[in-house]
Amino acid sequence: MRRFVIGRGRNFLNRSHQQNLLSSSSSHCQSRFLSSTSVIDSPSSSSMAPTSSPAITVDSLNPKVLKCEYAVRGEIVSIAQILYCNIGNPQSLGQQPITFFREVLALCDHPSILDRSETQGLFSADSIERAWQILDQIPGRATGAYSHSQGIKGLRDTIAAGIEARDGFPADPNDIFLTDGASPAVHMMMQLLIRSENDGILCPIPQYPLYSASIALHGGTLVPYYLDEATGWGLETSEVKKQLEAAKAKGITVRALVVINPGNPTGQVLAEENQRAIVEFCKKEGLVLLADEVYQENVYVPEKKFHSFKKVSRSMGYGEKDISLVSFQSVSKGYYGECGKRGGYMEVTGFSAEVREQIYKVASVNLCSNISGQILASLVMSPPKTLEDAFNSLEGITCNKAEGAMYLFPRIQLPEKAIKAAEAEKTVPDAFYCRRLLNATGIVLVPGSGFGQVSDRSPALGILGAPYCLKRTRFQRL
Amino acid sequence: MRRFVIGRGRNFLNRSHQQNLLSSSSSHCQSRFLSSTSVIDSPSSSSMAPTSSPAITVDSLNPKVLKCEYAVRGEIVSIAQILYCNIGNPQSLGQQPITFFREVLALCDHPSILDRSETQGLFSADSIERAWQILDQIPGRATGAYSHSQGIKGLRDTIAAGIEARDGFPADPNDIFLTDGASPAVHMMMQLLIRSENDGILCPIPQYPLYSASIALHGGTLVPYYLDEATGWGLETSEVKKQLEAAKAKGITVRALVVINPGNPTGQVLAEENQRAIVEFCKKEGLVLLADEVYQENVYVPEKKFHSFKKVSRSMGYGEKDISLVSFQSVSKGYYGECGKRGGYMEVTGFSAEVREQIYKVASVNLCSNISGQILASLVMSPPKTLEDAFNSLEGITCNKAEGAMYLFPRIQLPEKAIKAAEAEKTVPDAFYCRRLLNATGIVLVPGSGFGQVSDRSPALGILGAPYCLKRTRFQRL
Repeated sequence: MRRFVIGRGRNFLNRSHQQNLLSSSSSHCQSRFLSSTSVIDSPSSSSMAPTSSPAITVDSLNPKVLKCEYAVRGEIVSIAQILYCNIGNPQSLGQQPITFFREVLALCDHPSILDRSETQGLFSADSIERAWQILDQIPGRATGAYSHSQGIKGLRDTIAAGIEARDGFPADPNDIFLTDGASPAVHMMMQLLIRSENDGILCPIPQYPLYSASIALHGGTLVPYYLDEATGWGLETSEVKKQLEAAKAKGITVRALVVINPGNPTGQVLAEENQRAIVEFCKKEGLVLLADEVYQENVYVPEKKFHSFKKVSRSMGYGEKDISLVSFQSVSKGYYGECGKRGGYMEVTGFSAEVREQIYKVASVNLCSNISGQILASLVMSPPKTLEDAFNSLEGITCNKAEGAMYLFPRIQLPEKAIKAAEAEKTVPDAFYCRRLLNATGIVLVPGSGFGQVSDRSPALGILGAPYCLKRTRFQRL
Repeated sequence: MRRFVIGRGRNFLNRSHQQNLLSSSSSHCQSRFLSSTSVIDSPSSSSMAPTSSPAITVDSLNPKVLKCEYAVRGEIVSIAQILYCNIGNPQSLGQQPITFFREVLALCDHPSILDRSETQGLFSADSIERAWQILDQIPGRATGAYSHSQGIKGLRDTIAAGIEARDGFPADPNDIFLTDGASPAVHMMMQLLIRSENDGILCPIPQYPLYSASIALHGGTLVPYYLDEATGWGLETSEVKKQLEAAKAKGITVRALVVINPGNPTGQVLAEENQRAIVEFCKKEGLVLLADEVYQENVYVPEKKFHSFKKVSRSMGYGEKDISLVSFQSVSKGYYGECGKRGGYMEVTGFSAEVREQIYKVASVNLCSNISGQILASLVMSPPKTLEDAFNSLEGITCNKAEGAMYLFPRIQLPEKAIKAAEAEKTVPDAFYCRRLLNATGIVLVPGSGFGQVSDRSPALGILGAPYCLKRTRFQRL
């Protein structure tokens, strides 16, 4: 969703960027960045800044910062556009935040209302329960205190559990570094890896300009590899290998490979087979794999599925000692699009204790990331269970996954005694159950036998709405 | 409040830091940093990280990061201590957040409750009003959208107004850069100013280790100047001048002077005269003045007052073209101590349009700071008016400032007609007013004449509580 919007911009060959970007024999070497003749809400209107300055001139600034200018000029323009008219910032265009997330954040911001009776009417029971859980994970329930520099331990536990559930492989909360969005995490890794312009980072082209900007700021060299538009922006390890060898021949020590999956700005979802080849390549070449996985919830085609690089490498039998892997995640993307909350994390695996200490040290220089962003990162990695999950967690009830429409059709295994009681009343068992439930609770279910289903098992729930709403409005009363 | 706590640590001469720190003839050259034998919740427990790593070893990391290790080792330890037992993190020790701030944050996190009737009972009218004001300042009321990279314009307007009210000199919202706490703002300025180890930054010793860490990370040289313990940690420009000359003699280009006022970790509040000398010095030497003013609300002695360096320089007649000045502010300090919210700003004046564009560019690489932190920064720079301010804004009422105890004694100028009506009832005018007020509104005031005050003017308010509470609980009903 952070894709470029061409808008009024034009493609151009950025010369300064090219100096920084290792030249290549590839015919599509010309990287594309945006230019524009106007910047919305420019910070440098002539009315507020003098034309000359007493101490500092632009020529006496850090040349890495100046170089970075060209690499991100396109970004600045696109950010200015994003703010008002671009797809990378959904809530600026009216997408409403997920109620559950915002309720929990509000309650954690002002916990003293948690015990008030009015709160029960204003906030869902789920949110109140989750807010209590989170507050209990925070030392002293202090949402206004600096946390551990990696983030609050209990929230990292939740995130690690979410990763485990996603991947089917263990995740360690000590591997999680919570950050103010994914960008600061990327900067941290660049700061650690880049020693001089002789250090290179392999980046996909087209790329999200955060990478060129960060590499320029840290004084390294961007080693491009080209995604193949003809094969749906395919990532061929033969192309990466070719660029790696070209860089080596020029005296560049390549330290890491950036992969953005799902792709930004190219929108592809890598096939698992392709990911295996990339993992194998990084292992063989001794490269750190920097996996930008912030779009993991944004997969739109039924035949594609997101697989984390950690899952792929673990499924190949590769562990801590085989591959150095960093996975970046953000609360700004996905279905939630909480860009302004600046939450995210990186999962860091396959580094020595000494190197990890350095990563922790860099994190600690900024004390900690913002607590609301930390809470939100834990929420997106452990969203409320859907109604089907809730049904399946109950004894004697099973329910297929909702794949479409607005219904669930759960199966309730009635006890023999209930079936006999129904027969004694000369009624089908599920209608008997529904009547008893109505009398006892006021909740109306439609008997499954009315839909032709085997009569003793499946009262259907005739409920409209999204699974989450179902959970809030109905299931808890059930 | 971020002062060092010695605790179990010991002073030691940090050799690596010394290499980075320009040697000096001063007898107290040995800088003090903390060491400790244990780190709470260490990120590098042996159970989670391998002893060897496939791609990256500590020796192949960025040497600036490695150097920084020694400069902030003390900080890491002290951060670990701060989390649980230190004075730099008040809410971790049970200090409760300011209700008004948290109510506004909660309402901005979940604006859809603003129109609900239950909200009136749960939140103060002030907070609801302020939340609406803030939401109206945010494009689309989208608290989950990326903002302008300097921060939301309306919030910067509020902050600029707060600075103007504090200083009595104009402030421009375009000079404000909202950041995730003061630390990232300091890093941004170091990133801009430091080109190589030949660039120096004058820092007070003792200093808050953010500065040594940031200078090391950006590859510059810390040029120390020593605060004089014998004169209450006095800052003598003769000492600064001596160190500046020593640095120049060694080929160092000194680019900026860091002043921490009120002092961290030394706790002094600079005299205005002293500040004038510092401003004069920076102007003469062409140094950027980096003013760490995050403790501006933490002044404890009646004879000292905080003066911002901007106010001091403007009162000397120096404007944009005379001195380059950056003032850092944070929501983590002051009476609010909202460390976990990561809010803050820097006010940047006296730089050319070209240089400001570079600052903006660096800010834009991380997109924006977190919106809750931005909102909180606006709130601490425009807290609710006290009851005395409210009284004084009303026609016919004046009230002296509360300097202690828990009372205000306002003067109400009664109209001639009321005084005559009182006389007709053979009662003193203020008792007449109080009785009429009681009958009309149910609010009880104690007539000032009961305290011996001139009878026609001053019904006293017999109310307990802090001015802010007064405003909420009484004044609005009045």
